[in-house]
Amino acid sequence: MVYVSKIRLKVTKKMNKEKFELMKSLVQKNDAKILFFVMDGLGGLPHPDFEDKTELEIAKHPNLDRLIKKGICGLTDPVFPGITPGSGPAHLSLFGYNPMEHQIGRGLLDTLGIDFDFTQNDMAARGNFATIDENGIITDRRAGRISTQKNEEICKLLSNIKISGVEIFLKTVKEHRFSVIFRSPSLNDEIEDTDPQKEGLKPLPAIAKTEKAKSAAELVNKFIAEAEKILKNHYPVNSLLLRGFSKMIKLEKYQEVFQLNPASIAVYPMYRGLTKLLGMNVLDAGQSIKDEFDCLKKNYSNYDYFFMHIKKTDTYGEDGNFEEKVKIIEEFDEQFERVFALNPDVIVITGDHSTPALMKGHSWHSVPSIIYSKVCRHDSVETFNEKECLKGGIGRISAQYLMSLAMANAGKLKKFGA
Amino acid sequence: MVYVSKIRLKVTKKMNKEKFELMKSLVQKNDAKILFFVMDGLGGLPHPDFEDKTELEIAKHPNLDRLIKKGICGLTDPVFPGITPGSGPAHLSLFGYNPMEHQIGRGLLDTLGIDFDFTQNDMAARGNFATIDENGIITDRRAGRISTQKNEEICKLLSNIKISGVEIFLKTVKEHRFSVIFRSPSLNDEIEDTDPQKEGLKPLPAIAKTEKAKSAAELVNKFIAEAEKILKNHYPVNSLLLRGFSKMIKLEKYQEVFQLNPASIAVYPMYRGLTKLLGMNVLDAGQSIKDEFDCLKKNYSNYDYFFMHIKKTDTYGEDGNFEEKVKIIEEFDEQFERVFALNPDVIVITGDHSTPALMKGHSWHSVPSIIYSKVCRHDSVETFNEKECLKGGIGRISAQYLMSLAMANAGKLKKFGA
Repeated sequence: MVYVSKIRLKVTKKMNKEKFELMKSLVQKNDAKILFFVMDGLGGLPHPDFEDKTELEIAKHPNLDRLIKKGICGLTDPVFPGITPGSGPAHLSLFGYNPMEHQIGRGLLDTLGIDFDFTQNDMAARGNFATIDENGIITDRRAGRISTQKNEEICKLLSNIKISGVEIFLKTVKEHRFSVIFRSPSLNDEIEDTDPQKEGLKPLPAIAKTEKAKSAAELVNKFIAEAEKILKNHYPVNSLLLRGFSKMIKLEKYQEVFQLNPASIAVYPMYRGLTKLLGMNVLDAGQSIKDEFDCLKKNYSNYDYFFMHIKKTDTYGEDGNFEEKVKIIEEFDEQFERVFALNPDVIVITGDHSTPALMKGHSWHSVPSIIYSKVCRHDSVETFNEKECLKGGIGRISAQYLMSLAMANAGKLKKFGA
Repeated sequence: MVYVSKIRLKVTKKMNKEKFELMKSLVQKNDAKILFFVMDGLGGLPHPDFEDKTELEIAKHPNLDRLIKKGICGLTDPVFPGITPGSGPAHLSLFGYNPMEHQIGRGLLDTLGIDFDFTQNDMAARGNFATIDENGIITDRRAGRISTQKNEEICKLLSNIKISGVEIFLKTVKEHRFSVIFRSPSLNDEIEDTDPQKEGLKPLPAIAKTEKAKSAAELVNKFIAEAEKILKNHYPVNSLLLRGFSKMIKLEKYQEVFQLNPASIAVYPMYRGLTKLLGMNVLDAGQSIKDEFDCLKKNYSNYDYFFMHIKKTDTYGEDGNFEEKVKIIEEFDEQFERVFALNPDVIVITGDHSTPALMKGHSWHSVPSIIYSKVCRHDSVETFNEKECLKGGIGRISAQYLMSLAMANAGKLKKFGA
């Protein structure tokens, strides 16, 4: 798997560069505004309990249907047909990057949610504070779910650990959960988890999967040893378990690639972190969908690209809760009416992948998508759902092209060649 | 041209690796069964003598239409739009491999049909036994179409030829036709045919097209010289003509790539040979379409992937016999009814390419295709033909994705990324 992903990395860099660099070379700045709406896990499947219809087919969305009267519809593949993506690859694709080139490790993805300024020298891992007995056996992987406040105290203490050649940052997430970031040049993240994921076992040492990762693994083990010394008198917290070691990924910023002044509106921390990586200005999105649209309206004049992420379509999809997913779509549609007044130049509405309530999880199915602009060559689709999008003018394309299409519709891409 | 195709090869190798390796890294084994039906040359063109309809539009196929009520349709490109493929590339694509990366030489393709266990060190060529006169001029390229029995006797004799550093195998095909396989490490197959394809000329020497192929060409010439000595007293057979020198291609087996236990049901020898290369268990398919479905039923419980190949749709297409091609489709449909009782998890029905009776040959036209599973997101297509497939949920994709989609629908692909 490690080997595979290495082959892939080399290869895709070349493949991706070609199209990506071409687009980059054509970007021109103007005042046009792009609104990019992502309903997480939007796509669905016909459900036997609901007239054999999909979530989008059951939901009422008069405002989206009003938009597509002047828009163009289609279906997008996050990676390629048959591949079910996690949130990381699915979003990178929507942002216009090749999801096979830039892979975000679990630890990094989970750590992106915390308020932290990552650098290219950072390696992150997610951590649990845990309880071990006198024999070093894990008796509680969550140290009795200590309070977030207690967590903060302990993180503060552990932040004092000094290991030469490396900076170490500890960040409280919640209760027993924290993130640790090791900052040092040329760390290699191919390290096994120290969390055995089970009680009744000893914490594992950090083992390097490759020669290159040896020094990083040693560093991690040193840190754990130091930490356990400090934690001796903080029962129930007397150990820690680390997993998902991952290096910061190199992503060109939106400012460089698209010459945009981008803003991100997302309630869920992970998406705030991810868009921050891309150079987006992370706005205060509040908690509800209405809050997110309030945020859009408030900041509308300050940016030329807005990414808005709606989380709960995916959450309810994963719960298999068809009706609640329908309600979220309807809630989004109701708020979306406010966008017409803003009269943006380009609107994209899509999902990062499908999460059919029927399957209770992410799926490979292509994602219904809308692009609106005054020059989008609108098609004859009249209502927004999976079946209708089949007839749409976008056809079936890779989700990576939504961004180049958005840029083109905004007049932000020059002609290629004479 | 050679230069160009070499560039293309390099590039596509990379392109392919990327997606192929990603898919491979996501494969997980389960008990789901995939049935993969290929009607060779399935796609057609509207025919003026038949109400300006295609073979599929004229044919009655109630069972396929019953399947698509719960299935999803679309059009597939064997290579890319505009490319008319031979059977080799067309099938490699259906099997999920990049047809531009793995190119099967003519000699190999023709030799695949014989019952022979190829190794990576083998170079195959197709041969004719021929008659030459005292001046070495070819008087009969087929040596009077000698009996297959006579052919076998001669192959036996020639199998005694010993050349150091190489094993030589002669295999009777039929009448005057045979295959020769040279087994030795590092043979290079860039060798000109020795068959001038005309009578009244002398057989040509085997000429190396490249420096690398020199030693292989010498080997072939040595073999021919030895053979002609032996054939002195076997008039009308006193010479042999070789063409289509081709090395064995390296293809990862289905077991490795897809972790499947695959079986192949094909009447036509070439497809038995090709699927054997991929590690498929080649079953006794009998002679008729009914035999093939009997074979499927008999072996259904023993494998989790079945490839079934129907040859005659292509044969009649190439003959320009519209009505007979229609009948084969109807015969397939009639037998297909038996599949419903087996209740497989995933069904794919497609063609390797189009062979419109109107054109009497393979064509570049995209191929009508069906995927069925309980989670395929079925579309509103109601009958199976080229026009209706345009409205289908698969859209227009590369035929290579039929396999990744089949695997996804079978629950055999894990999620990519966090």
